[in-house]
Amino acid sequence: MIDEKGILFILSGPSGVGKGTVRKALFEQSTDLRYSISMTTRAPREGEVDGVDYFFKSRDEFEKLISEGQLIEHAEYVGNYYGTPRQYVEQTLNEGKDVFLEIEVQGALKVRENFPQGVFIFLIPPSLEELKDRIVNRGTETEEKVKNRLLAAKEEIDMMDAYDYVVVNDEINHAVKKVQSIVSSEHCKRERVANQYKKALEE
Amino acid sequence: MIDEKGILFILSGPSGVGKGTVRKALFEQSTDLRYSISMTTRAPREGEVDGVDYFFKSRDEFEKLISEGQLIEHAEYVGNYYGTPRQYVEQTLNEGKDVFLEIEVQGALKVRENFPQGVFIFLIPPSLEELKDRIVNRGTETEEKVKNRLLAAKEEIDMMDAYDYVVVNDEINHAVKKVQSIVSSEHCKRERVANQYKKALEE
Repeated sequence: MIDEKGILFILSGPSGVGKGTVRKALFEQSTDLRYSISMTTRAPREGEVDGVDYFFKSRDEFEKLISEGQLIEHAEYVGNYYGTPRQYVEQTLNEGKDVFLEIEVQGALKVRENFPQGVFIFLIPPSLEELKDRIVNRGTETEEKVKNRLLAAKEEIDMMDAYDYVVVNDEINHAVKKVQSIVSSEHCKRERVANQYKKALEE
Repeated sequence: MIDEKGILFILSGPSGVGKGTVRKALFEQSTDLRYSISMTTRAPREGEVDGVDYFFKSRDEFEKLISEGQLIEHAEYVGNYYGTPRQYVEQTLNEGKDVFLEIEVQGALKVRENFPQGVFIFLIPPSLEELKDRIVNRGTETEEKVKNRLLAAKEEIDMMDAYDYVVVNDEINHAVKKVQSIVSSEHCKRERVANQYKKALEE
């Protein structure tokens, strides 16, 4: 009789920020989150297991799934497809379990179109945090060096706008704890909790 | 040059739910939160210290502060005034530190009028959670017993609407952890973080 859907959490951020490292550290700890495994046409690397690291598919299979609308998002990098299978995500959420995606920025924007109720977390590099501190504290940094960093920073800051939360990856354990806090507090959000009670009392 | 205001957190809930116990357990742990001490005209009990447990004031002093607008909220219980001094809250927030209030439901509603940007946490008794589970799982409870509890439950659920988060006080440690998660995740909210970066880059 439980009619509570799970929550979809999406971890994203600029390339090289350490999304994969944070995700792995998060899943090494006890968690109720279910990780949504990506699908790819790239060949498995040594040690990679189908259905654990990725779902490995041929190009034909992948393109068939795209045309059938079975991927929430997909993209092509260096000649290979990567994507998020729809069925696992929807089925798991319907079972009342939370799903966790770790995904590139472009993919996250597409997921947002399909799942606007998802919780979008943007991981930023410590260099952005340091840049802010440097500016705020009027440090001794050369003007030139700060200006070069500013261009990249502006792009990163513009990306933030599509997200609900921003986490600095200054240290993996800090970042993991913040993500865990976000997961926990999202379950305490009043709209979610109040609706559960209101539904229960209506029965 | 830091121009980041602290966040005001308000813990409230129905009488007897255990707000004080959760607040004490929270402050026994390491925290950056500053507790806003209430003001009262009630006489100190044995062991209570002025400026630690309460600010103890005479009735005249208290009424003068009310008329000067120096209390964010106040109420009278059993012939004594209780209230929240404005100066400490505003000054601490302006210093960039978070403030924590533990307060009755009526007071919380008044705080919300003054500080709509505050984060309002509603603590609910486990009996409400149990009631929901009982209804949802169609337990063997007698109809009569459930019905009696339903009236109180409806009032509690209606109260929730003025809050941002709902935490079940099923076990003190669980409740404390959830409050800590809310504090941590509120600092990761995109609007807050993005504004800090945007401000820094404008300089």
